[in-house]
Amino acid sequence: MKKVEALRKLAFEKKGFDGFLITNEMNLLYFTGFPGATFLLVPENGESIIYVHSTNYEQAKAEGEGFEVELVKLGGNLMRDIAAQVKSFGIENLAVDTLSFEDYEKLMKGLKDETKVKMENKLVWELRKVKYAREIEFMQKAGELTSEGMKTAYEVIKPQMREYEVAAEIEYAMRKKGSWGTAFETIVASGVRSAFPHGGCADRKIEKGDLVVVDIGASYRHYRSDMTRTVTAGEPSTKQRKLYKIVKTAQEKAFQTVKPKAKAKEIDEIARKVIEDAGYGEYFVHGLGHGVGLEVHEPPTLSQESKDELDIGNIVTIEPGIYIVGFGGIRIEDTVIVQKKNAEKLTKGAYTLETRW
Amino acid sequence: MKKVEALRKLAFEKKGFDGFLITNEMNLLYFTGFPGATFLLVPENGESIIYVHSTNYEQAKAEGEGFEVELVKLGGNLMRDIAAQVKSFGIENLAVDTLSFEDYEKLMKGLKDETKVKMENKLVWELRKVKYAREIEFMQKAGELTSEGMKTAYEVIKPQMREYEVAAEIEYAMRKKGSWGTAFETIVASGVRSAFPHGGCADRKIEKGDLVVVDIGASYRHYRSDMTRTVTAGEPSTKQRKLYKIVKTAQEKAFQTVKPKAKAKEIDEIARKVIEDAGYGEYFVHGLGHGVGLEVHEPPTLSQESKDELDIGNIVTIEPGIYIVGFGGIRIEDTVIVQKKNAEKLTKGAYTLETRW
Repeated sequence: MKKVEALRKLAFEKKGFDGFLITNEMNLLYFTGFPGATFLLVPENGESIIYVHSTNYEQAKAEGEGFEVELVKLGGNLMRDIAAQVKSFGIENLAVDTLSFEDYEKLMKGLKDETKVKMENKLVWELRKVKYAREIEFMQKAGELTSEGMKTAYEVIKPQMREYEVAAEIEYAMRKKGSWGTAFETIVASGVRSAFPHGGCADRKIEKGDLVVVDIGASYRHYRSDMTRTVTAGEPSTKQRKLYKIVKTAQEKAFQTVKPKAKAKEIDEIARKVIEDAGYGEYFVHGLGHGVGLEVHEPPTLSQESKDELDIGNIVTIEPGIYIVGFGGIRIEDTVIVQKKNAEKLTKGAYTLETRW
Repeated sequence: MKKVEALRKLAFEKKGFDGFLITNEMNLLYFTGFPGATFLLVPENGESIIYVHSTNYEQAKAEGEGFEVELVKLGGNLMRDIAAQVKSFGIENLAVDTLSFEDYEKLMKGLKDETKVKMENKLVWELRKVKYAREIEFMQKAGELTSEGMKTAYEVIKPQMREYEVAAEIEYAMRKKGSWGTAFETIVASGVRSAFPHGGCADRKIEKGDLVVVDIGASYRHYRSDMTRTVTAGEPSTKQRKLYKIVKTAQEKAFQTVKPKAKAKEIDEIARKVIEDAGYGEYFVHGLGHGVGLEVHEPPTLSQESKDELDIGNIVTIEPGIYIVGFGGIRIEDTVIVQKKNAEKLTKGAYTLETRW
């Protein structure tokens, strides 16, 4: 309920709303603590209501502490029911995190212009991007599990192995230690496919000398982690070593500048400059990083166009890369937490281009 | 491109639109064949354009056959750019699959009322719910992999094992055989937690005599599968056997009525009646099933309020269940394909309450 209290403070006391409707699945998980709610209505005057379908009703009653639980009627018009509830709470200024155009129209029809409605997802992100101690604990655990998975990658990758076989070993190692699942689709992209930052994982056989980009994440109690290492199957070439060193330097330099009040754009710039100065600027085709939490990509964003400023309790990735079509790609990524004076890595170790093979 | 041609035929020739904007991630994957597109604009007169961020630009060019690829500008206003493109194609009646209220406002601002815009996600679902031969092939493979995972569940489940350890073995078995990942978060819900249909998978130790609901899915080339079995750790009790038999009968009876032109609502009714007649109607707290494809829950829907009619090439789940809070839950689920005269299961085997333990 601490999170709902924080929402009340921010949206009602500071911003002058007197009701908040939460519709986004991950926002719902954040505030209710369990997956499966359909909507959450937080009134300034009254008790918050979780709307759930019958499938999740009993679980909501058991796990949704501190909320009223309302069963979604079969074949009903839920937006109309919510509009009626908004009116019965006497809400005049309703904030909504996000709505599809269709649901917006239904809601407005139900409200008959008697309530002002404003989209305010940014307010929710102001809360979500600063992690609580308990969230940090879960993300530390997710980071540890991910690091274990990466250790396994270094142990198993060798020529003639298929990409999905590597993924099998990594995911198994994370699961066995207590992972709740993968934070996103595991990437094991080898050879020329390593030049695609989101190359996924296919049945390609890894060949001797290939670059292999391994981008993985465990999840723990719905919180995620994100880590990338790039390895070679066999002895690296001179060019592979050279590019790796550039990316590693970029990542280390950027990491050292992560601290409260740092401008996200400037941290991106530091990594980008290292790669540009080495002559590979055009091959760093994405931003330096992104926030991580219940979602694997969330605010704040570290990129050339970001307006974000980092703060204590933000958890972000630092992941420079160089991608050369026809040659391959190299990326090094850690999930890090912004602390009072500096940053600390939640994903650790396994920091070389060579595997044990 | 076959899918885009089908969209053109349905939306332009039959429905009178002259442009279609696709924004939903899964719709984009369906039409483009690769993950990572941001938008797809299909004009009646002109070549379709995929909009991608720089991260995925090279992959889109390599894998997005038959499309023009447009790079999304950093810090730009993409909805405004799309509005300009809509106008330059001379589109007068634009269909859109779905838009957030915010993006809708931006698009309308850019279009300056010169183009009519209508939300038409249902048209996309008309296409997506009838699977092509190649999609069926991928889903057969996903079904086989899922059945392998379930076989493993029967082999490994025993008292004192933790739920996530069971998940580890299942997922590993599926991955080793070629799964691209899990179709959804694996459910291994034991004991009283088995009464929650979406109980997930935690660190609870399975105890002797527990009901264990195992709900799993492999994915293959982005296509998913969905299968549930319920087992006991050790000898089942009389009541467990009795409830299992009811659910199994309900599933078999419903499965036998799946065929083209069958009303989804009536198939649900057949399973529901078996459970109701046995006196457990109130404990079957969800619909009988749902479509499966690129998403694990998609149209058509088999439920009490469904208006869907089944057709050849639909792929749906049949999954009745009984959930008694404090006692536990039983669900049996297969993914089945509607064929000319009947239905065939894509998930197979492992059809008993007892494990090998």
